[in-house]
Amino acid sequence: MYKKNIPKDQLIMGLHAVKEVLTHAPHRLLHVFLEPQEKGRKSDIQELCTFQKIPMTFTSFRQLTDMVESESHQSVVAHVKGRNFVDLKNFFREIEGKERSFVLMLDQIFDPQNLGALLRSSECFGVDAVVFSKNRGSDITPVATKSSCGASELIPLIRVSNLAEAVSQFQEEGFDAVTTLLNPSSESLFDFTFSDKTLLIMGSEGEGIQPLICKRANRSIYIPMQGHIESLNVAQACAVLLSAAARQRNP
Amino acid sequence: MYKKNIPKDQLIMGLHAVKEVLTHAPHRLLHVFLEPQEKGRKSDIQELCTFQKIPMTFTSFRQLTDMVESESHQSVVAHVKGRNFVDLKNFFREIEGKERSFVLMLDQIFDPQNLGALLRSSECFGVDAVVFSKNRGSDITPVATKSSCGASELIPLIRVSNLAEAVSQFQEEGFDAVTTLLNPSSESLFDFTFSDKTLLIMGSEGEGIQPLICKRANRSIYIPMQGHIESLNVAQACAVLLSAAARQRNP
Repeated sequence: MYKKNIPKDQLIMGLHAVKEVLTHAPHRLLHVFLEPQEKGRKSDIQELCTFQKIPMTFTSFRQLTDMVESESHQSVVAHVKGRNFVDLKNFFREIEGKERSFVLMLDQIFDPQNLGALLRSSECFGVDAVVFSKNRGSDITPVATKSSCGASELIPLIRVSNLAEAVSQFQEEGFDAVTTLLNPSSESLFDFTFSDKTLLIMGSEGEGIQPLICKRANRSIYIPMQGHIESLNVAQACAVLLSAAARQRNP
Repeated sequence: MYKKNIPKDQLIMGLHAVKEVLTHAPHRLLHVFLEPQEKGRKSDIQELCTFQKIPMTFTSFRQLTDMVESESHQSVVAHVKGRNFVDLKNFFREIEGKERSFVLMLDQIFDPQNLGALLRSSECFGVDAVVFSKNRGSDITPVATKSSCGASELIPLIRVSNLAEAVSQFQEEGFDAVTTLLNPSSESLFDFTFSDKTLLIMGSEGEGIQPLICKRANRSIYIPMQGHIESLNVAQACAVLLSAAARQRNP
């Protein structure tokens, strides 16, 4: 049988997630495990595996559940290569000479489903990279990969140990650091013009953004709302902001 | 002990959900159940219950779990009054004479978490009502109420047995029915002007929108994206569309 005890951060799960990676980043895949059952969407995955020459093992639902420690794998799990996180200096080298860059920084996103949703919208709206902390937030768990719809394997990820320091480095490279806070100097999204180089910083609903990071930010933005409820969830808010930035780039 | 076997559709759960309802719609609440433990956010709820004169019963985590058949209640569950869904004719009477109205229609949203997120962003962006089907979609379960952050109790809900018929009724009242589909005649959100009276129709990721409804729609819209992944999840897409409509109303 294929290797047991694959580290959790090298397992992705879910029909859509595995299918997107098979389609757009097959080089990331080492092995696909799936339940030998129905036809339909799972047979797509079998065909794609054959086409992309990715080895496949039929595995029971129970065994898949054991692998990912979750029952929401939709009968498909895949082993991906260990992630090569992008180094911050290399990232700056890559975008050297580019007029525009949009990067998302995540602070204290502890819910893997939110993390996944944030990666998904980042990929959809052409964000150049997502920066996150080694310690202060969820890891890229199988749940996060599922909710990311495979974006975890498609979008450049920058993992740093100190987010506040990374903010300063981005600023040195000409980025405006923008937080999403409601304070007296916050600007309405509806009047906001994103700088050509923007680092958008999103915090979790519960914890928010660390004060040290808030202090270093250049600007702060809020989404005008009409209802009673305090705010959107972080993944919805981020999609709204990223779409507004995309609209500005492509008016 | 307080009534057992409260129907699931009269139970809401989650710290934020119960707190928002205590704050903005206390008349909806009959009883609050919470675990007698930590201080902090739960003590806010106790204070609000006292202030709003809502009876409170201390209940174990396990009992709360049994009530809502979920472990994600965050130690707070509340019994709300049976929902008075708004009748379509009454809704049209209410908005008579209004120049603008924005209504969201949900088709085949079977995931209660997505349903809740959609209600939440509808409330945040001042949608006048949400129309959903009696049969083709998730009911307003405790999971949906939690994910809605209490919006399930704040936003007017219209429950109909036939969505396609309801579309026609909205059209007779001067609404444009807008679907979210990618077809040759779809218009980009970035060039789109919402009509003063808009019925926005969102379908689930898996099932989409029923053909009969698509056929009746006046226009179709898509969110331009740059990535490889097919689409945002329905709750993120809806937040993007609602924020764009709100921006248009308040430029």
